[in-house]
Amino acid sequence: MTPSPTLCYHLAMNTLVRDVTIIPMNESELIFSGDIGIAAGKISFLGRMPQDFTPDTIIEGSGMVAMPGLVNAHTHLSMVYFRNYKDSVENLHDWLSEIWPLEDLLTAEDILPASRLGIAEMIRSGTTCFADMYLFPEATCQAVLESGIKANIGLTLFGGLVESKRRMRCRLPLVDPIMARAQGRILLDVAPHAIYTCPQDTLEYARDFAKERACRIHTHVSETLKEVQDCISEHGVSPISYLQRVGLLTPETYLAHCVHPVGDDLKLLAHSKAHIVHNPSSNCKLASGIAPLASMRDSQVGIALGTDGASSNNSLDLFHDIRLASMLSAVSTGNPIAITPYEILKMATTGGALALGRQSECGTIEIGKDADIILIDTRKPHLTPINNIFSALVYSAKSTDVDTVFCKGKVLMQNGQLTTIDTHEASESTSRHWAEILSRANRSAYQGR
Amino acid sequence: MTPSPTLCYHLAMNTLVRDVTIIPMNESELIFSGDIGIAAGKISFLGRMPQDFTPDTIIEGSGMVAMPGLVNAHTHLSMVYFRNYKDSVENLHDWLSEIWPLEDLLTAEDILPASRLGIAEMIRSGTTCFADMYLFPEATCQAVLESGIKANIGLTLFGGLVESKRRMRCRLPLVDPIMARAQGRILLDVAPHAIYTCPQDTLEYARDFAKERACRIHTHVSETLKEVQDCISEHGVSPISYLQRVGLLTPETYLAHCVHPVGDDLKLLAHSKAHIVHNPSSNCKLASGIAPLASMRDSQVGIALGTDGASSNNSLDLFHDIRLASMLSAVSTGNPIAITPYEILKMATTGGALALGRQSECGTIEIGKDADIILIDTRKPHLTPINNIFSALVYSAKSTDVDTVFCKGKVLMQNGQLTTIDTHEASESTSRHWAEILSRANRSAYQGR
Repeated sequence: MTPSPTLCYHLAMNTLVRDVTIIPMNESELIFSGDIGIAAGKISFLGRMPQDFTPDTIIEGSGMVAMPGLVNAHTHLSMVYFRNYKDSVENLHDWLSEIWPLEDLLTAEDILPASRLGIAEMIRSGTTCFADMYLFPEATCQAVLESGIKANIGLTLFGGLVESKRRMRCRLPLVDPIMARAQGRILLDVAPHAIYTCPQDTLEYARDFAKERACRIHTHVSETLKEVQDCISEHGVSPISYLQRVGLLTPETYLAHCVHPVGDDLKLLAHSKAHIVHNPSSNCKLASGIAPLASMRDSQVGIALGTDGASSNNSLDLFHDIRLASMLSAVSTGNPIAITPYEILKMATTGGALALGRQSECGTIEIGKDADIILIDTRKPHLTPINNIFSALVYSAKSTDVDTVFCKGKVLMQNGQLTTIDTHEASESTSRHWAEILSRANRSAYQGR
Repeated sequence: MTPSPTLCYHLAMNTLVRDVTIIPMNESELIFSGDIGIAAGKISFLGRMPQDFTPDTIIEGSGMVAMPGLVNAHTHLSMVYFRNYKDSVENLHDWLSEIWPLEDLLTAEDILPASRLGIAEMIRSGTTCFADMYLFPEATCQAVLESGIKANIGLTLFGGLVESKRRMRCRLPLVDPIMARAQGRILLDVAPHAIYTCPQDTLEYARDFAKERACRIHTHVSETLKEVQDCISEHGVSPISYLQRVGLLTPETYLAHCVHPVGDDLKLLAHSKAHIVHNPSSNCKLASGIAPLASMRDSQVGIALGTDGASSNNSLDLFHDIRLASMLSAVSTGNPIAITPYEILKMATTGGALALGRQSECGTIEIGKDADIILIDTRKPHLTPINNIFSALVYSAKSTDVDTVFCKGKVLMQNGQLTTIDTHEASESTSRHWAEILSRANRSAYQGR
């Protein structure tokens, strides 16, 4: 099945999710049982069905937990190509020297199937919204449009001002029309890659672009100790201080990693109301370090979760990062509940919605919000007995327990089957393109001799 | 379906697994494609089917990876009851004060369904052999016998010599007959709980029992810093030195945790040829610490992996611990390949087989060994492209990718469906017993007023 974008929305449909355990994530550790009504893509009631509601579709929720769809607040979607590719090397630089020449060979045609595949993986693991930063964003937008998921698509800036303006000039006219068709599901953010890949004028350009467009700013910061040391050497201040100096620490900024805050960094972050995106798998896998999550929480910094790219994770399964975030916060502080399971789930839902500027539309299950909801089937050996739902979701659950996914009220997955993406075709096409990319690389290496 | 133990073995059946990618784990990073023949429960050929082999059953392996069944070398199976039960408390002692009174109320009748449920969870996640240490081992043996899995069942010693001998007198006559019927699938080990719960005469009794029975010794050691400090205060040496002094460090000993080796502990372990069982989820969740896995490997200490009980993990899914072991070794050493993915998979297979004294029968895919094999379906978005199988299995795979499980040649799961355990019945029964246990606890608390 190759789904057509025109089939993606039936917003007039009324859907009833009957008799489900609801964790709305809007009030501390609240759990209740009842029905969920979905009309015109939004949550129309919670609890008991009103008499004037006529469901077109009824989904039995018995044995299921309904929670807000997960928000993966930092990824590089189409890096699925590099999943487990030559990743067993001693340092990041050796690995990047394998990856960068391949990235130079990518085309928009390569990005489309990889984006579809990555979105398939995310929907299957309960993600309804993600933030991306990668090449050819128009192709990723196309995949988002077709698939029914939500995304904040970063227009990546990398290198000097001339190059950054060129990128913007090329991509913006391609992305804007797709965004306009996505009924709010696609937001466009500006994504200066990092302080060590973007000179100050590029960062200032990003800041001004964000102000003009009223969009958000997505960047990497303080990922490694080396970055922090280099920034102090070069600019005399920490990377976070430097971002503030350039005017990039704003309530509309979300910062991936932030593994090594130093000095007053956490105070600066809290004061600026910028958001952190914690990427525990990537930070472990690349041996970057363990971000001080409990200190961030104590400093009242907004925290979201992300997978980072599949090349440094090596998956897009946010359940992996939910579990790992909890494990790391316990072992690194010596306190098993330094961060509670509920707090971790907040980061994966409302924390992400806040970071991506979508808190009024998603991140919780509340009447009037978009129906971005996942149903998790708890009738599994590994979830029996359940005892504490929040602990169970963080420690025992697997992404494959996600049975049904709604985004803006549309069913993107039911009974574990995707409805908008042909997984087989996306996998086949990605594999075909990957073989072509490798063959291009061989040719290019041959010509380079 | 309630399976009958008499239906469990059809050892005369010839099974062909056709056209599968095989990682035998007996030679560094070897991968090859071919067929696997299974006859009389053993691997009869690898590669191409000989002309004189007539398969009764053919399983298509295309798109699958065949690897040795996982060995979960440390668990407390029936603690599935306490999965996510009041686990969000600040310290281990508060939690134990909730658990211990409940454990006192458990009966052998409670242990049977919980063991079935735990085994179901393990088979579903690719485990074909486990080491247990818990109450009423005869009930767990019964569940092992029925289910077709392999287990080293620990006869737990806890407290003084009189109590320990009483336990042995009670349990041994119940366990031995079941073991005799299990055709080698069940081995009986002696399991003195820990140096801080067993006085020296109990430990010496365990040592002598192990010698007399030629069985193995399963214990906890150096799990927390407190244990190490207390042991140094009381005995003047580290817990591992103390075990050596008592004569418990032998090639037949496997030691759960070992998070805090000090001084010459790793040398002692290597010299004694005792085995470590690394339990990363439990060590993180309880904030015990991160075991120095790379140093252990460098010291040539044998390493296996375990989940620990579902009460401190909170699952029995060894894929969680495979991933976490790798993540922790990278981030704690600052070296992404401090331990390679292949080494982690070795720990989860051959390392476990060695620890449990089963290296001649399982842990690798080799002609003449028991057919303890799992087939992992790689045709999934999160495993596309696969690029490196070992990385993919450690970082990207989920336990739910396990499609088929053989133990001694018998199919315990096919297409994700268990063949020897009625999962629904095991779940229902466990939930019923758990409600009864809680109601017993309420009555007992009421009577205690």
